[in-house]
Amino acid sequence: MRAAIIGGTGYGAIELIRLIQNHPHLEVGTVVSNSQAGSDFSDSYPHLSNIVNQTLEKFDAKKISRENEIVFLATPSGVSSSLAPQLVDTGIKVIDLSGDFRLRSQNEYETWYKHPAPDEQYLSRAVYGLSEIYEEEIRGASLIANPGCYPTATSLGLLPILKSNLADLKSIIIDAKSGVSGAGRGLSLTAHYAEINENLKAYKLGAHQHIPEIEQVLKDETGRMVTISFTTHLIPMTRGIMITAYVNLLGKTSTNEVNELYKQFYENHPFVRVRPVGAYPSTKEVSGSNYCDIGLHVDPRTNRLTIISVIDNLVKGAAGQAIQNANIMNNWDVRTGLNSIPMYP
Amino acid sequence: MRAAIIGGTGYGAIELIRLIQNHPHLEVGTVVSNSQAGSDFSDSYPHLSNIVNQTLEKFDAKKISRENEIVFLATPSGVSSSLAPQLVDTGIKVIDLSGDFRLRSQNEYETWYKHPAPDEQYLSRAVYGLSEIYEEEIRGASLIANPGCYPTATSLGLLPILKSNLADLKSIIIDAKSGVSGAGRGLSLTAHYAEINENLKAYKLGAHQHIPEIEQVLKDETGRMVTISFTTHLIPMTRGIMITAYVNLLGKTSTNEVNELYKQFYENHPFVRVRPVGAYPSTKEVSGSNYCDIGLHVDPRTNRLTIISVIDNLVKGAAGQAIQNANIMNNWDVRTGLNSIPMYP
Amino acid sequence: MRAAIIGGTGYGAIELIRLIQNHPHLEVGTVVSNSQAGSDFSDSYPHLSNIVNQTLEKFDAKKISRENEIVFLATPSGVSSSLAPQLVDTGIKVIDLSGDFRLRSQNEYETWYKHPAPDEQYLSRAVYGLSEIYEEEIRGASLIANPGCYPTATSLGLLPILKSNLADLKSIIIDAKSGVSGAGRGLSLTAHYAEINENLKAYKLGAHQHIPEIEQVLKDETGRMVTISFTTHLIPMTRGIMITAYVNLLGKTSTNEVNELYKQFYENHPFVRVRPVGAYPSTKEVSGSNYCDIGLHVDPRTNRLTIISVIDNLVKGAAGQAIQNANIMNNWDVRTGLNSIPMYP
Amino acid sequence: MRAAIIGGTGYGAIELIRLIQNHPHLEVGTVVSNSQAGSDFSDSYPHLSNIVNQTLEKFDAKKISRENEIVFLATPSGVSSSLAPQLVDTGIKVIDLSGDFRLRSQNEYETWYKHPAPDEQYLSRAVYGLSEIYEEEIRGASLIANPGCYPTATSLGLLPILKSNLADLKSIIIDAKSGVSGAGRGLSLTAHYAEINENLKAYKLGAHQHIPEIEQVLKDETGRMVTISFTTHLIPMTRGIMITAYVNLLGKTSTNEVNELYKQFYENHPFVRVRPVGAYPSTKEVSGSNYCDIGLHVDPRTNRLTIISVIDNLVKGAAGQAIQNANIMNNWDVRTGLNSIPMYP
Repeated sequence: MRAAIIGGTGYGAIELIRLIQNHPHLEVGTVVSNSQAGSDFSDSYPHLSNIVNQTLEKFDAKKISRENEIVFLATPSGVSSSLAPQLVDTGIKVIDLSGDFRLRSQNEYETWYKHPAPDEQYLSRAVYGLSEIYEEEIRGASLIANPGCYPTATSLGLLPILKSNLADLKSIIIDAKSGVSGAGRGLSLTAHYAEINENLKAYKLGAHQHIPEIEQVLKDETGRMVTISFTTHLIPMTRGIMITAYVNLLGKTSTNEVNELYKQFYENHPFVRVRPVGAYPSTKEVSGSNYCDIGLHVDPRTNRLTIISVIDNLVKGAAGQAIQNANIMNNWDVRTGLNSIPMYP
Repeated sequence: MRAAIIGGTGYGAIELIRLIQNHPHLEVGTVVSNSQAGSDFSDSYPHLSNIVNQTLEKFDAKKISRENEIVFLATPSGVSSSLAPQLVDTGIKVIDLSGDFRLRSQNEYETWYKHPAPDEQYLSRAVYGLSEIYEEEIRGASLIANPGCYPTATSLGLLPILKSNLADLKSIIIDAKSGVSGAGRGLSLTAHYAEINENLKAYKLGAHQHIPEIEQVLKDETGRMVTISFTTHLIPMTRGIMITAYVNLLGKTSTNEVNELYKQFYENHPFVRVRPVGAYPSTKEVSGSNYCDIGLHVDPRTNRLTIISVIDNLVKGAAGQAIQNANIMNNWDVRTGLNSIPMYP
Repeated sequence: MRAAIIGGTGYGAIELIRLIQNHPHLEVGTVVSNSQAGSDFSDSYPHLSNIVNQTLEKFDAKKISRENEIVFLATPSGVSSSLAPQLVDTGIKVIDLSGDFRLRSQNEYETWYKHPAPDEQYLSRAVYGLSEIYEEEIRGASLIANPGCYPTATSLGLLPILKSNLADLKSIIIDAKSGVSGAGRGLSLTAHYAEINENLKAYKLGAHQHIPEIEQVLKDETGRMVTISFTTHLIPMTRGIMITAYVNLLGKTSTNEVNELYKQFYENHPFVRVRPVGAYPSTKEVSGSNYCDIGLHVDPRTNRLTIISVIDNLVKGAAGQAIQNANIMNNWDVRTGLNSIPMYP
Repeated sequence: MRAAIIGGTGYGAIELIRLIQNHPHLEVGTVVSNSQAGSDFSDSYPHLSNIVNQTLEKFDAKKISRENEIVFLATPSGVSSSLAPQLVDTGIKVIDLSGDFRLRSQNEYETWYKHPAPDEQYLSRAVYGLSEIYEEEIRGASLIANPGCYPTATSLGLLPILKSNLADLKSIIIDAKSGVSGAGRGLSLTAHYAEINENLKAYKLGAHQHIPEIEQVLKDETGRMVTISFTTHLIPMTRGIMITAYVNLLGKTSTNEVNELYKQFYENHPFVRVRPVGAYPSTKEVSGSNYCDIGLHVDPRTNRLTIISVIDNLVKGAAGQAIQNANIMNNWDVRTGLNSIPMYP
């Protein structure tokens, strides 16, 4: 099955290509980059020399649809909103990795993203692609809004306890940490090596566009309005996200009980691994892989649960989950093409 | 004034030497390392070649006292507890950088540190050397318990709001992040380059020995028992600590008001810099210096305050604050020898 | 085909497991670690949780031979020398990743390695597994001496020009740079994070045990004694080796001509990629993959050729080349299980 | 003495300010940044908050000259060429950190720098500020061309042997490695964190503009035309330069003899430290300091000398040497304001 990739020179696209190459049922089809159309892919990314000998093309919805069976949009937010509808209209299945189709409310989108929301009719068709939670909806979807990196790590880390009725929903604090590749390949002082190497930085306090996305999922799943505290930090590493979440428990509950609850919640979901009591995952333990690893600790002194949830931001937080969604849409085993072992060290 | 340094081959000692070299009234006196006595300092640390031509000596309390006027103990916890009393008995002023004299309760010490506490009579003499808060007590002290790195960043970040009666003392969560030098020069898999580079790791959840130290300060200063949630993370960088603290506010308060409160709290304390509203310090902005920089954000959606507090763990979190305390004990300007600009980038 | 791995808790073994997992004809069989026999693999390496549920075993040559069809020895040098013969005697095919069977001269081995050489009869059976150069010999071998990381990057970078008669063989200088994982998982001050992060270090000048290995290959292939200058440097990164080699040219030759010569030399070798004139590979462009990428520049001012050759030290420099050799020994396509795209960024 | 700094928002200027702050006879005067004139310095560099409360000004040669006694130009090459003459004409002493006044030949400048050379009359007045070598000339100069970072480490590393008549001047190969701060604060893909972290890259082979600068010094000091091979590499660290230089020796000479020769050459130069035989400096051993540390090894197998020379590119390779030159021009002790201990770890 040929897969088109739009936004071909960003890190999301590059990671899609790496994963598709390893996938038995998918192959790289059209690769679109309006800015570099006509040039060879490996000019921008020499690591692809002799592997992907693709010429970058201009965006043409009909041609893409004719020559491919699925499309991955790895374009920036604000771009997908206009491209995805054209593709959906041709009937091709679309998986959008930007944030454009994640928020159902146009209003909320415009508040947080600061540019116009996509057309209502496409928003309403989009299915939020948090694979472990919305498998059924994803199976029949024509347009997938692939979740953000922080929301993936956060939702998978929080949902078991929040759905258990053991948690005080007003107490949720998420301290999030990300590697620098999350900022993409676009140049900025924040991602300038000498500025962020040997440095640690908090950013966008109370203003990160992933806040409403997380709150929407938590509300959908708990049936109650949830307002979170969410702080993002930039870590001097290329890949990896860790969220450390804090939740007040309503009754006395032990780490063992919570651990058991999580294990049961994810027992049929191979990409979520719950560490044993007393162990906590580090980001390198999922590097290059589609795993989300979770560690849990209940402090009996405060009756507060601390959740450590880690993913590779470019895999489970982007391209990997997109492939996982493609697997679901095609009724393939969810692990197809995604069973590589994390690269360690 | 000659300053002896005990524990000469650890990072704390090395940083003391760097700072003393820049101090107009102090000079490096006896340097003790029982393990490497007899060898030259620059054998272990070639960066000191032609600068510090010191032979490492064995510990001898009387000799140290005769040849020096102040002693810095940069020994591991469990070692200071036996060495410091011998030194104190000779009448020399002692500043201890280990954790041995920070907790007033022997019981609590033994619970968290897992080895025997120091003798009660010395514990009761020790003054907790958080320079900005205990200046008066430090001035007259003979034995200073120099604060831990995490407790310094945490206490300076929390005290203004906790003492204001605006804070819910039951809601305090501290998400702490440290560079790897905090683990010292002793070899361990955790500090092995290939394991922690490009990695991010939570550790010692609910078990870090700095928890009772922080709670003791907060109790002393607020007059109320305070139980905190405290999670430590290892960041792939050498120097720097950031704590991100979360506190529920009791009434509606704006970021502006909190910012003003902090500015006033620290207006006579040159080493604490409060960033303007909307700005948050990064660890590199204090690297190599004695500053503690603080940024503040009140989220009106949750009425929760987020505090970002950064220090260089080896300076304000160890050797720098020790020098600051020596300045106070000697009635020198608190900035003496400590006014270097942070090294950036 | 079941593959046993001896030395199961080192980085070489871990990388073998990652690659074998991705290989259609191989599966992980017995995993031996004398020091941790009886414990679960994922205790040492949590990234393998739910993937490799192997109990580590003690070394037992007969049992290994019964239960597996090929053995990879990822033991330290000095250990393989005694284990490999026991395995070879059982008739099982052995690929040894240590340095023990690479030097044909016992004398030379003992000079550089400082411990006793393996028995002569096994040394003489060992085939040096530089896959691109010795494919025929590897095919029929029972014991492969898998090349060192530096020698792989160096030999592949140098051989085309040295075999061309265009090079002054007395002028060869190799300036080699390696990531820290090359030092293995054993603790040392050199690999201690705070010591090597933000640092760059030259080591073992004129004393590196890879010198005689490189000289042996160069002599074998040119028919002349070759004495090299070889300097190794430790780079603050986990993976990757770059060698920058300098060779005086005997006549006037252009970069274009040399580039063409290299392209022809490697035209049937998919894992060696020669960059176009004016482009030079970086180590990240081969990260996690079995490629050796080469860039070339002739300086007309000095008539000297500069060769840049990069590999991932744990893949093409160790486990990947071992799998490549297993492919050759089994008459599988040389790329089998090794066609993953480098992980970038 | 007030010191003006032109080019105030680059890393060179920032390092000048850090060093001037520590200098007993200098203070920061006018700071010029045409692009950010009118704004506060600490807006761009929050680490200077409460320390340097300077408003950035526009360039005005007369005003600068009236209000300061010395000027440091930390502007890019191509900018100094027009600003320095205006300043020199006012009679103020000028130290230029760009490359504009280093090459005496306008022709050569234009060949390597690809833009117009400065006016001949100013070029001829400029003194090359390699402090250890040209102390006399620097003392009386009105315009100093402060050396490049690579040329400083290279020239100090090579000159003792090249001036000794023991070296084959045709054999000089310099393998140079630099931290990323050498590329400045200007954004580029090369300095984008995710591209250079965990990566190692060779660049500008045979085309680096420091080649003619090095060759000019070597010719001046040996009296013979010298053509070098010079390869530059980007290392994933912020600060530090190491050059590894290779020189064929003309007769049999031991490491001991060469070491002695270097020690004598630099015995009156406190900023050059020659390591004992068998020891080699790492870049962190000079971090933040004005030292150039040198290690030496003669390989008896090849009779070739390997020289390791390290500096902090922003200190001895830029701002530190500029201050050292200011000390010489003012007849202050050469170490004034520069005796900080390297920051380690």
